[in-house]
Amino acid sequence: MRDLRRRGRRALSCLLPCLLALGFSAGAIAEAGDPLPSWSDGPARQVLVSFVERVTKEGGPDFVPPAERVAVFDNDGTLWSEQPLYVQLAFALDRVKALAPEHPEWKEKEPFASVLRGDLAGVAASGEHGLLELVMASHAGNTSEEFARIVEDWLATARHPKLGRPYTECAYQPMLELLAYLRANGFQTFIVSGGGVEFMRPWSERVYGVPPERVVGSSVQTRYELRGGKPAIVRLPAVDFIDDKAGKPVGIHKFIGRRPVLAFGNSDGDFEMLEWTTAGPGPRLGLLLHHDDAEREVAYDRTSSVGRLGRGLDEAPARGWTLVSMKRDWKRVFERP
Amino acid sequence: MRDLRRRGRRALSCLLPCLLALGFSAGAIAEAGDPLPSWSDGPARQVLVSFVERVTKEGGPDFVPPAERVAVFDNDGTLWSEQPLYVQLAFALDRVKALAPEHPEWKEKEPFASVLRGDLAGVAASGEHGLLELVMASHAGNTSEEFARIVEDWLATARHPKLGRPYTECAYQPMLELLAYLRANGFQTFIVSGGGVEFMRPWSERVYGVPPERVVGSSVQTRYELRGGKPAIVRLPAVDFIDDKAGKPVGIHKFIGRRPVLAFGNSDGDFEMLEWTTAGPGPRLGLLLHHDDAEREVAYDRTSSVGRLGRGLDEAPARGWTLVSMKRDWKRVFERP
Repeated sequence: MRDLRRRGRRALSCLLPCLLALGFSAGAIAEAGDPLPSWSDGPARQVLVSFVERVTKEGGPDFVPPAERVAVFDNDGTLWSEQPLYVQLAFALDRVKALAPEHPEWKEKEPFASVLRGDLAGVAASGEHGLLELVMASHAGNTSEEFARIVEDWLATARHPKLGRPYTECAYQPMLELLAYLRANGFQTFIVSGGGVEFMRPWSERVYGVPPERVVGSSVQTRYELRGGKPAIVRLPAVDFIDDKAGKPVGIHKFIGRRPVLAFGNSDGDFEMLEWTTAGPGPRLGLLLHHDDAEREVAYDRTSSVGRLGRGLDEAPARGWTLVSMKRDWKRVFERP
Repeated sequence: MRDLRRRGRRALSCLLPCLLALGFSAGAIAEAGDPLPSWSDGPARQVLVSFVERVTKEGGPDFVPPAERVAVFDNDGTLWSEQPLYVQLAFALDRVKALAPEHPEWKEKEPFASVLRGDLAGVAASGEHGLLELVMASHAGNTSEEFARIVEDWLATARHPKLGRPYTECAYQPMLELLAYLRANGFQTFIVSGGGVEFMRPWSERVYGVPPERVVGSSVQTRYELRGGKPAIVRLPAVDFIDDKAGKPVGIHKFIGRRPVLAFGNSDGDFEMLEWTTAGPGPRLGLLLHHDDAEREVAYDRTSSVGRLGRGLDEAPARGWTLVSMKRDWKRVFERP
């Protein structure tokens, strides 16, 4: 027994120089046991940790069985950057350019003409109807398997205009840690996004650890048919479901069938999701990420055209929702700056 | 060490008489390690066990990672009895009777008048449109939480007309064993049913071990609204999605987002689900339960108005689908006869 202890000490005394030689700083070693190393030791982190401790404490008054530990996350602006423009919109614009040779008429037709001229203001001027036309033209007509490949191929080459790296490397590091922390505590983590479900599913597991069956989003209608004798799910140019605003609780109910205990969003499009989540009985947690960090990301809220946050800012205190300040609560924003 | 071994032998020699005294037969003891005790040792069981062994064998040519082991099951006629009539139709009829005092006009109006007279033939004569009217009148108008309670209350008192016990005790015992066997081997088991998703979710976990978020079914449209200041999901009298026939692969794609590796159905309404599942690359398994046991259940297939199985019977051999004979492949049908 004494011999074993001595051998243990010897192994440990070996380990430290090895780790240091491998480039681990003392800080990294100290952090090894911390599941949320990118979160500052402030109020937001305390709210999160205290909530997880309460709902996982067996026999405690706030215990929630694992099956009911459903946590839902908005995607754009909550898990990854939505500035300067939604990633899926960047995809749609690139897709229109790629398809343009097959559509000579687009040179004269809005909003396609603006896209091809690289005139984003012109695209925006086409309004909601124009955007819908863009999405339909760029997202439909193929099979679901073809579409998943197109998304993957695009993500492999496209780069975030400001950060200069693949979009899938623009996820917020503190949120990746939070997703993993929740799952390690028996939570099921779901994405509930206004974005297209088939745009997210091909990479959600790789990037967020969220498998396709736990992604809820907007969708186009699809049809099952035989193409050349082979069964296929074909994407049609028609909206099936818009998973935004009051559509988010509807989507949660439709796809998950349970009321979540935790909801995390960043814009007024997430208001009803937080409202629905926190109105349930027992312990509930609503959080809104406030983009207030002009230095490390972008500072925007109530006047922004993308990810507007006004009502949420105003009502969060009275509703007991936690405002997470990017500036104050996050030690770092991305894995790489 | 020798002492430990002796103690182990002594404990074992004690155990056997104890078990026998408690009423365990030698057969039950032998079966304790068998995950499928209600399945006869025939071809269907062999196909199932061999498939599970192949896809779970790490390093083997047919290995499927746990995340992709998605198995989908029809409900009516596959997991529980659909004869003499769909359980959900029995619910709708009882619900119309319960609501009748609030609707004096139903006494004169078909198909309600037939329901109130107990005239099933009259109900059937109202056709698909009449049935839809029945379902809408009996399934909408309330909130999702109210509806879940109504379903639970009904299930607590309603009895299967032939078996004389709660419907939730009319699940097929071999299928319960199969669901548990698949989950024990890392499969995710989903229900993909033509029945209403909100009719199944309240009890699917208790009866089948399938949680609400793994139930796919038909649905009515819902709307998020504040009722007396409290958020609610309100059920509207309009169809949202019909999860039957070619709708099943669409539902699988929409709600699960992965192609299953195993699909189990019993009627031609499941044909496309099996077709979609087994057309994928790698190991795939399609199964159809053939109700050929008039003695222990009901014998029906190609001419039945409920759960018709014609095309599936004809094409199963050429498509490599396994026909499971209730008569030949199941030692028992229900937990209690």
